[in-house]
Amino acid sequence: MAVGPDQLPDFHRIAGFRLGTACAGIKTPGRPDLVVMELSPQSTVAGVFTQNLFCAAPVILCKKHLSSVNPRYLLINTGNANAGTGDQGMADAISCCQALATAVGGEEQSVLPFSTGVIGEKLPVEKIQAGLPDALAALTEDGWQDAASGIMTTDTRPKGASRVVEYQGQGIHISGISKGAGMICPNMATMLAYVATDAAVSQVELQKLLATAADRSFNRVTVDGDTSTNDSCMLVATGAGVTVEPGSELWDEFAKAVNAVLLELAQAIVRDGEGATKFVTIAVEQSGSSKEALQIAYAIAHSPLVKTAIFASDPNWGRILAVVGRAGINDLDLYALQIYLDDVCIVEHGGRAASYAEEQGQRVMNQEEILIRVVLNRGDVSEQLWTTDLSHDYVSINADYRS
Amino acid sequence: MAVGPDQLPDFHRIAGFRLGTACAGIKTPGRPDLVVMELSPQSTVAGVFTQNLFCAAPVILCKKHLSSVNPRYLLINTGNANAGTGDQGMADAISCCQALATAVGGEEQSVLPFSTGVIGEKLPVEKIQAGLPDALAALTEDGWQDAASGIMTTDTRPKGASRVVEYQGQGIHISGISKGAGMICPNMATMLAYVATDAAVSQVELQKLLATAADRSFNRVTVDGDTSTNDSCMLVATGAGVTVEPGSELWDEFAKAVNAVLLELAQAIVRDGEGATKFVTIAVEQSGSSKEALQIAYAIAHSPLVKTAIFASDPNWGRILAVVGRAGINDLDLYALQIYLDDVCIVEHGGRAASYAEEQGQRVMNQEEILIRVVLNRGDVSEQLWTTDLSHDYVSINADYRS
Repeated sequence: MAVGPDQLPDFHRIAGFRLGTACAGIKTPGRPDLVVMELSPQSTVAGVFTQNLFCAAPVILCKKHLSSVNPRYLLINTGNANAGTGDQGMADAISCCQALATAVGGEEQSVLPFSTGVIGEKLPVEKIQAGLPDALAALTEDGWQDAASGIMTTDTRPKGASRVVEYQGQGIHISGISKGAGMICPNMATMLAYVATDAAVSQVELQKLLATAADRSFNRVTVDGDTSTNDSCMLVATGAGVTVEPGSELWDEFAKAVNAVLLELAQAIVRDGEGATKFVTIAVEQSGSSKEALQIAYAIAHSPLVKTAIFASDPNWGRILAVVGRAGINDLDLYALQIYLDDVCIVEHGGRAASYAEEQGQRVMNQEEILIRVVLNRGDVSEQLWTTDLSHDYVSINADYRS
Repeated sequence: MAVGPDQLPDFHRIAGFRLGTACAGIKTPGRPDLVVMELSPQSTVAGVFTQNLFCAAPVILCKKHLSSVNPRYLLINTGNANAGTGDQGMADAISCCQALATAVGGEEQSVLPFSTGVIGEKLPVEKIQAGLPDALAALTEDGWQDAASGIMTTDTRPKGASRVVEYQGQGIHISGISKGAGMICPNMATMLAYVATDAAVSQVELQKLLATAADRSFNRVTVDGDTSTNDSCMLVATGAGVTVEPGSELWDEFAKAVNAVLLELAQAIVRDGEGATKFVTIAVEQSGSSKEALQIAYAIAHSPLVKTAIFASDPNWGRILAVVGRAGINDLDLYALQIYLDDVCIVEHGGRAASYAEEQGQRVMNQEEILIRVVLNRGDVSEQLWTTDLSHDYVSINADYRS
């Protein structure tokens, strides 16, 4: 199950960025599960990673490599997260980087490793090594679509976004893919996302741009509140095209397009959230601070009672009210706040809105996309995030995942 | 579904405390849904209530009445929470207290009202008023069992506990009942619990005793992390028997028995948690503080991924490790901590324990009662709480609740 149309975009090619996908049989024989991305030498690379303390061996190694030399390759496997694997996991991640470096005649440190899948099982290094020649042979600037499939785990469909910013007859191109459906509550990044542009951008500025964009996209989605051990979001600028510098009008347009790509990729993860039948936007407005707005928004997004009501298309506004009341903002003025489903006011003056009729709420809840809006009337800060419902399929998927 | 044997205790009668149950047809015709409890005039009463800001009208009124006169009656209806009902809800709660006061020739303030059930619908005051004569006619010191059924909502079975403390040939008796299965994450109290003793205890000491006991019992259970709007836990001392005063050995024994009754009632709620197939104890030991221990314990207890793995009897220890890593204690030493399933060490040195074999974990997970133990090795504080798994039935119950 997933919400909204299942359609990959026509990816803009990114000059200087090639992708190759292969079937290494890591978990399931015959499905694409190994992706290599090759960056031109002048590329700059930015990354944001999970804040889970138990971050996976490839995440630790990736951060280390990123800070040592200019990356030339991203190596991604699905089917095994290589997380919670201790010293063996680190040795395995290094072995994979070494194998790719040997195959291409490069340095081990120029390879950034990424893994996703089940936690706590030994990485099948030999399978990954054996799959590398196929992945390298497949490298092409047209490889986005295959790679989008190659990084999937419990995803039901591949996810991508692509934009072009026109500049003096030249296009600045941005393409990206993401994966993730469960264990989604990114904290500084999400499961896996790879975005590339042919713009030339300094590493420092690229990192700032990514951090801001990820904070407003991947860090604003949640499926189940469980922050993964392997979240990584990478932004590559190959520099094959136009040079973009902060402070210019072009930078603003470019940043806007990057933000749009990241947001689309992040929302695609929610739309394909495990068992999702609804795509829910939660907005908290007129708040005193970003922190309190997010605290209320996440409390709603993580409430099993609200999520099951949404699954049932039940306008059970009492459950939303109850969450706002227990969200931990102890000086809220309950009589001043309003809660809306789309444009329908459901709660005001501390109880059901006088104007509310059940069929209005039912009309909104029957939709596949729903907006829950809490207006606090105590400031001018707004925050929003995106989440899913909690369905039988979520339970089935996660009760069966290892079997 | 529920975990463990379905068995009410033989309730000890509490002299000076009578209970009467009736069918008022509040939500479902013909099922017991109205309970009156009558306290002898010399009784002292202590209560703890939900910290949800949107607390229900009866909770607000109950607290007000409790602070004005000596309570003589508790009036409890199920099938409607009278929460999120604004000014109308308060007027309705007052009407119910007035009706009972009139029927018994007492003061409105001497009646403490309690409601539980769906949030946000108007309380059917007339049905409650019409049911009062039957409930009053049924008043008896042997009414515990009927009352335990009369306060149920989505509970699949009534819950009770009873103890006696022997003292110089006289018994001090303690009996109690509770209800609750969903929207369970009490904060200072739980859904509804009523405990009575024939001891004579001053109101001040009774309140202290209750606050401490509730904190170690009802405030340590969670089904779904959703704190209800109506949580109330009441402790009544009728004074018909032995006088108990703090500082004595008898007080310690008495307090221990009260604690045991509250803990049994709180755990009974978890055992009957919505859709529960497992009863899970989460213990965090050798912690630096109670706060961090509870933060980790609740993060585990509320993780949908851990809960679905438990439902599947899947020793998916990687999910537990991932939660500990994202629980927000940022200076944890991952290499120093251990995680156990019962007596089986599953995680040490930052990954899977060297001694661990899957069949050991499977053996524990196949049990109906499971202990997850996290040993932090950074202090001497321990905390534990109790929770359930997340099953298909939880989703069904909460997706169908209003239909």
